[in-house]
Amino acid sequence: MSESTRLDYRAAGVDLDAAERAKERLKSLVAATRDENTLSELGLFGGLYSVPLGVANPVLVSSADGVGTKLKVAFLANRHDTVGQCLVNHCVNDILVQGARPLFFLDYLASGGMDEETVTDVVTGVAQACKENACALLGGETAQMPDFYAADEYDLAGFIVGIVARDNVLDGSRVRAGDALIGLPSSGLHTNGYTLARKIVFETMSLCVDDGFPGSDRMVADVLLDVHRSYLSALAPILDTGTIRGLAHITGGGIPGNLPRILGTDLGARVDLSSWEVPNAFRVLAEAGKVERDEMLRVFNMGVGIIVLTSPDDAEGVLTALREGGSAPWVMGEVEAGEGVRW
Amino acid sequence: MSESTRLDYRAAGVDLDAAERAKERLKSLVAATRDENTLSELGLFGGLYSVPLGVANPVLVSSADGVGTKLKVAFLANRHDTVGQCLVNHCVNDILVQGARPLFFLDYLASGGMDEETVTDVVTGVAQACKENACALLGGETAQMPDFYAADEYDLAGFIVGIVARDNVLDGSRVRAGDALIGLPSSGLHTNGYTLARKIVFETMSLCVDDGFPGSDRMVADVLLDVHRSYLSALAPILDTGTIRGLAHITGGGIPGNLPRILGTDLGARVDLSSWEVPNAFRVLAEAGKVERDEMLRVFNMGVGIIVLTSPDDAEGVLTALREGGSAPWVMGEVEAGEGVRW
Repeated sequence: MSESTRLDYRAAGVDLDAAERAKERLKSLVAATRDENTLSELGLFGGLYSVPLGVANPVLVSSADGVGTKLKVAFLANRHDTVGQCLVNHCVNDILVQGARPLFFLDYLASGGMDEETVTDVVTGVAQACKENACALLGGETAQMPDFYAADEYDLAGFIVGIVARDNVLDGSRVRAGDALIGLPSSGLHTNGYTLARKIVFETMSLCVDDGFPGSDRMVADVLLDVHRSYLSALAPILDTGTIRGLAHITGGGIPGNLPRILGTDLGARVDLSSWEVPNAFRVLAEAGKVERDEMLRVFNMGVGIIVLTSPDDAEGVLTALREGGSAPWVMGEVEAGEGVRW
Repeated sequence: MSESTRLDYRAAGVDLDAAERAKERLKSLVAATRDENTLSELGLFGGLYSVPLGVANPVLVSSADGVGTKLKVAFLANRHDTVGQCLVNHCVNDILVQGARPLFFLDYLASGGMDEETVTDVVTGVAQACKENACALLGGETAQMPDFYAADEYDLAGFIVGIVARDNVLDGSRVRAGDALIGLPSSGLHTNGYTLARKIVFETMSLCVDDGFPGSDRMVADVLLDVHRSYLSALAPILDTGTIRGLAHITGGGIPGNLPRILGTDLGARVDLSSWEVPNAFRVLAEAGKVERDEMLRVFNMGVGIIVLTSPDDAEGVLTALREGGSAPWVMGEVEAGEGVRW
């Protein structure tokens, strides 16, 4: 029996030793995100995290997300340290809009091969954003799936758990007709609409990642890989003041798909499209792809990353507090009776 | 300007309406897993779950996992209702071995298209296993990623959070030399080693999913899609009795890759390979693939799903309790001084 007829896991495309080496390199990245409640190190079957004290009637808030096909842009640009940041920040925002602060995060990274450098870059981005959001990177799964993913491709998903006192949960129940809608700017496309955006940029416009992006002094890769912004630091100072009646994270589905998620069944919103200037990237995509306005609004965030709902009386104070924190908020409309979003 | 030159999200391969319809169908599946601590319905940005009362110094235990290339077998067999069960049970076991009982689960399902029936089948499996393990299906992400996944393929990952009292955490610190290793049978390959197993079965042996599996009266698809067993119900009655000093979930890496994860730095184990009969599926894979014994042990669970570590004095009581619960445990070796696993 020749050696070559013997099958082992490496011959089948899975390198357990490389996986072990990568795991060792990741340990120090992960260690930097530990906090006083983190009880376990990487290596146990499950990550351990103490329920923090001092939160009345604590409620855990959890969300799962992926990066989507923004990853394809990262592959084209061979730049892998930003997508992890996008993922963590997306997850942080998804629980922030329910009123929660992050406790811990886990990632799922599945790849065709096991390029140690790429894995390290991806996890470095994840760990960096975890640190910025005071969120422990508690663990994760790095799966080798040859003949499932191309050797130099991967998928990346993440899971976050945060905490909020029961009385501070934002679930839409406090929203009233007449409430002000305050927008905070997005930092580009965030992580949504990339299937359409890539089609327009790379097919219709025939651009490459290192071409200049029209109307901008930046490269296509820079514009399309802009890191999804976390709104935790902007909103943390006013999160527990009672002035926020609701928050909407503008992700897939755009404003019409996300704003109604925190409005009651009888409430809708009127949004003044002239209240902000749609950033260049979206204008270029709309024009080059001949995408109609309503479709643009349904697919992209159009420059609005998160919407803060507050009573009309509190609006001025919230705007001031947000500006003092370094944000650039603006009043973009109001809640009104009747379902749906009107422009 | 003709209609056909306009680009929208559906033309680019993403169908938001189908996603919305699928979400509606999933709501009822998810609703069946709700418990008294589940505060949110699907549709919010984050799922809400109250920290249960009555757990002293509560510690959250969390794990992320994927199904791996067992999914490829599901694609070949066009059978999508078992992989979600495998995923949930895998996650349940990963936190169970730290002493935790599950609270809630979230899934990440990424696909090339949006076949509503397949999505429903997958989530049905997830929801069924969640219900069996008294675990709320709190949310998840269903991502459409055309040109990333083939239209009829998907990846599936999951994320679980459980809880354990600080004093009942199993982290290996209680394990001592001389402790008995008690094995519980696996239900097939569980979710590991499928890249090698598929290569042997579908390439070396040239079998199809609906061929008979050698040495068995079952089809290849049945054998390879056997549901990953959850050990929660078997171990729950003795979990808080103090008789369990450690637990190891035998997943990727096999016994030598997983048993040492809960042994102290100076401890190893002696495993008696003659103490159990390696199930037919593994014997067939070893023979057909000419896979050496050590490689088999490193890649597959070889019939051992979980290993219970207990003091020699408690071993008989634990065996009796497990048998009375309907399990088929056996003593398979013991902990001894010196690192590594010896056979």
